This record gives sequence, structure tokens and C-alpha cells, in this order.
Amino acid sequence: MQALWLENGQLSYRSVVESPTCQADEALIRVLLAGICATDLQLTQGYYPFTGILGHEFVGEVVHAPSKPALVGQRVVGEINISCGDCVHCLALRPTHCSNRRVLGIKQHHGAFADYLRLPLSNLYLVPDNVSNEQAVFTEPLAAALEIQQQYAIKPTDTVLLIGAGRLGQLIAQTLALTGCQLQVVARYPKQQALLEQQTIQWIAETDIQAQHYDLVVEATGSASGFQAAVNAVRPQGTIILKSTYKGDIQANLSQLVVNEIQLLGSRCGAFAPALRLLAQQKLHPELLIDERYSLAQGLEAFASTQQKGVMKVLLEP
Amino acid sequence: MQALWLENGQLSYRSVVESPTCQADEALIRVLLAGICATDLQLTQGYYPFTGILGHEFVGEVVHAPSKPALVGQRVVGEINISCGDCVHCLALRPTHCSNRRVLGIKQHHGAFADYLRLPLSNLYLVPDNVSNEQAVFTEPLAAALEIQQQYAIKPTDTVLLIGAGRLGQLIAQTLALTGCQLQVVARYPKQQALLEQQTIQWIAETDIQAQHYDLVVEATGSASGFQAAVNAVRPQGTIILKSTYKGDIQANLSQLVVNEIQLLGSRCGAFAPALRLLAQQKLHPELLIDERYSLAQGLEAFASTQQKGVMKVLLEP
Repeated sequence: MQALWLENGQLSYRSVVESPTCQADEALIRVLLAGICATDLQLTQGYYPFTGILGHEFVGEVVHAPSKPALVGQRVVGEINISCGDCVHCLALRPTHCSNRRVLGIKQHHGAFADYLRLPLSNLYLVPDNVSNEQAVFTEPLAAALEIQQQYAIKPTDTVLLIGAGRLGQLIAQTLALTGCQLQVVARYPKQQALLEQQTIQWIAETDIQAQHYDLVVEATGSASGFQAAVNAVRPQGTIILKSTYKGDIQANLSQLVVNEIQLLGSRCGAFAPALRLLAQQKLHPELLIDERYSLAQGLEAFASTQQKGVMKVLLEP
Repeated sequence: MQALWLENGQLSYRSVVESPTCQADEALIRVLLAGICATDLQLTQGYYPFTGILGHEFVGEVVHAPSKPALVGQRVVGEINISCGDCVHCLALRPTHCSNRRVLGIKQHHGAFADYLRLPLSNLYLVPDNVSNEQAVFTEPLAAALEIQQQYAIKPTDTVLLIGAGRLGQLIAQTLALTGCQLQVVARYPKQQALLEQQTIQWIAETDIQAQHYDLVVEATGSASGFQAAVNAVRPQGTIILKSTYKGDIQANLSQLVVNEIQLLGSRCGAFAPALRLLAQQKLHPELLIDERYSLAQGLEAFASTQQKGVMKVLLEP
């Protein structure tokens, strides 16, 4: 099969890669669509060491499932963390924090930028009929966005600031808007602003952020300046949720967190089922973010395009 | 009256300072005992600009209370934040975060290292008869320690690590121990270790901290290395509570907070009533921390002693 292969931080298109062989408790899945996200870009920039097939956002069709043949022909999406089931975190029902976890296209498990992938059956979720492939391919980042509500009870009366309106930021904006909260999104680029306006979500410039005002601030830029802006914007005893990782250490004024008794919550992956329920209800429209589609053979071009400022979602179509 | 006066970061003893005149809604209080804490040391090191009489930990006797004469002769302690009652934070029942707050001996209000001080009646709490002056003088830092349980529900089965066993750390250790949690305290100095042993609280060396293990980590050192130790010690989806401020910005790896979905809580002042209830029940013994007592005239000597490594609590007795 064909695939996009990462090795020593170098991404390449390979037309002949061995197809995965699935175990008894796994399924072999033909990839229908896959999405490129910031983590993929970071992997190609050498942030984490990974060798193999990249990609973790996908929708596919089951082509082989030895212990559950009824799955064959079904459309599925897949939880990306493959947990051991035996470690202290798995036993404490924190499987996404499994000490021995492998992660699709990120750690010790080949990913979705290929004709086929394999995943344990327990990682798979059926895609409802009325959810298109173009929507379902966003299930993983939508689940990550919804992890915010999993960790923090947003009140409909809360004033909420979202800093960052890029790929993940746009999905977070859509999910936050469902709570009825008073949402403002800091958006720098005209395209980001237009997308928010299309959904009647209020965007503001950085200079319009009110100091010590917001009950909740979601930081989705992954930059030191975004973090400091969040600390300045949140009200005393308010909450900041960090949705992006930062490159290396950053300088931070932690005393402000103490004096103003701020709650800081790191937030990563989320549950797939709620994301699929909201997609089935057509309450979320991630497909608005799609800018371009490329074949796997054009994969390097797709990655180059994803790195352009203002470009939202680029899909790969094997 | 006599007082310890701070000006341009310089502390001095003054034998003749004008006595405070109390307003209708205030009380004039004769100071019986006052405690020196880390914030006082920081103020003399110029961390915050303040001019006037230092000191915010005290127990005193009411000598004048125009609108509540029955208070005269009563022993009291006092909430240190003097709030306006009108700002958005006061109206939202966050008076300790009042935008216009004055703070006893810290901001725009003369403090307790003097013969007399004044405070609003609404800031005062009667000291139960069976609580000694030597215990009551710790009400303010005990309230700050209990703010942890106000912000975070500690489970009796939680594994808890406290980093730092100095003045505030010892009080936190005593209040954490009341929850029945599995508590370990990182203590560097023999005196800190002995105090903990005396109360059957387990102390460990820094090298014995278990990585990614604790449900809750309380950081009470105010150092960058203490913060990093806390991040390394907390389990995925666990909580870190910051009880100390940091000098300037610190270098921090915030990505670890995101990947492991850590909750960080800044924690400052707490409520006086619970601290007094626990003192009345004789469940807390802060008086064990008292090392030395000085007169106000010996105030500079008292401050010099407080800065010695291993010295716990130094009291001033006007």
C-alpha cells in the first residue's frame, strides 16, 4: 500500500509499504479520509521522535475484523490511544493516560496517512449514517475540544474567552458555543474571523480583551504570549484551560495564579461518543474548516499547504 | 505608641507613632501577640511597595468600638483583607479579591507590629476562651492553609505530597493530616523533620518523591525547583496547589500540564471561622512552631532571627 512515512523528522511519500496485519482483537480499516493537524506538523519538525506512518485523524471502512465479522463494511472512527488495560492508570479508569500507551500515528503504532490502518476493536466507534465522511474525519479533534466540558462545568451565564482561532480553536469555538455561554474568540486573521461570523460567534481583536474579566479562558495558541494573555484576562478565582502544548519551557508569572487564586487545567484527548452524538444532531459543522484535499501521492504538498498562515483544514484522500 | 515602620523597603523601630483613630464601623485593638511571616520578610526585601506599619498575623483585645461597645475587653483576631463591598468581586461574594481592597500591614492599612491597630468590625472574630494567645496568633496562616480544602475536596484515600516544611508548610501539614489522607511531607532540615515526627506526620527526602504518583501535590516552597518537582510528582489528571508566590517569572514546562491533564490551583487567603473552630477543638497545635518572642523595641533583631534557616515562628509582644 501507499503511505506518508516519517523517519528522523523527514516526511516522505512511499508507494510500497507493507499493509498492516490485524490481530484477533483488531480490525483492518481502509482509510476514506484523513486530516492533518498541528501535532502532525510538530512531529515533522522533530518535537517528538517517531518513526513510521503519520496521521491520527481519520474516518474509514472496516475491511477485516476476525472476531467481529459483522463490522466489515461499516464506517468507523477510532480512539487514538491504545492502552494496556493493566497499568495503574488503566485500572483507575484513565486509559488515555496509560503508562504503556501506544498512539496512532504518534507513538509505536502506524497511523492514518495510508491506504490501511489497524486498531483494537475497543477503539472503534460506528459513524451514524447521517454524518458525512467530511464531518466524521473531525471526530478526534472535536472529542479533544469537548474534553473542556468533561473537565470543567461551563455555566450558561459564564463569560468565556477563547484565545486562538486556528484549526483546533475553531472546533473549540463551536463546542463552547453550544453551552450558551457569553463567548468571545480572539481571532487574528480575516479567514478565521469570517468563519466565526458565519456561525454567529463573536470575535474580537487582542486589544479588546478585558483584564481580569472572564470566568473561563481557553488558551489554544500554544505560545507564551497566549498564556500571559490568558493569565491577564481571567477573573480572580476563574479558570484557564490549556488546550495546546508549548515548545520547550516558557517564562511564566505563577505568582499571579496564586494571588488571584486561578485554576489552571491542562486538557488533551477526549471521548469520541459525545462528539459523534453532536455530529449526528448536526449541531457542529467542522466541515466548514476544510480548505483543500490531496491524494497521498501529493502528501508533501498537502503538508506544505497546511503550514501556510490562515489555512484551516487540509485532508488526505487515499 | 511604638511600632515597626517600613519605608522604602527599610524597616525601623519607632517609639513614637500616632495611634490609630477608629471610625464608627471599626474597632481599636490592643495587640497582644503578632507573628512574623514570609510575606513580611518579602516586604522588607522590596517585593511590594508599602509604607507604614508592618504585620498582619495578630491576636488582640478590643479597647474601643464606638458602634459595638460590648466588644470592649474581648479577645479577637482579624481578617486582613478590607474590602469595599461595592466592586464586581465583592458583589460576586469574592471579598478577598476586592478590586479596591486594603490589606492589614501589606497595602494601604497600618499593620499589627504596633501597640494598637484598627479594623472594621466585620473583619473581627472572637477568640474562644480555650484557645490561647499563642494559638490564636496563628489564625490567619491556618486560615490560608485551610483554603486548600475550600478549593479542592481531598478524599481520605488520596495520596498527598506537600513540598516544603517551613512556617506555612508545617501549618499546611497539620491541616492536611486532619483529612485522613496518605500524606508525605518533603522536609529538608532536622528541625522541620522533628516537628513533623512529633505529630506522627511522615516526612521524606526530596530523593524519595515518587514520579507521577500523587493525587494531590501542595507546593509551599515558592521556588522554581519546587514547582518542577510538583509537576513531576503529580499523577496524570491529578492536582497541584500553589500556596506560595514566586519571585518574578519562572521557567516552567507547561506542556507537561497539558499532556498529563494536570489541574493547577493558586491558593491564597482563607476563612477565619473554620481555623478558630479547629483551634477550639484543640485539633491543631500551631504553638509548636514558636521559637522566640521579642518586644517591639527588639523588632529588627526578631526579623534577623526569622531569616535564619530552620527558624520557625518568631513572635512580637508589644
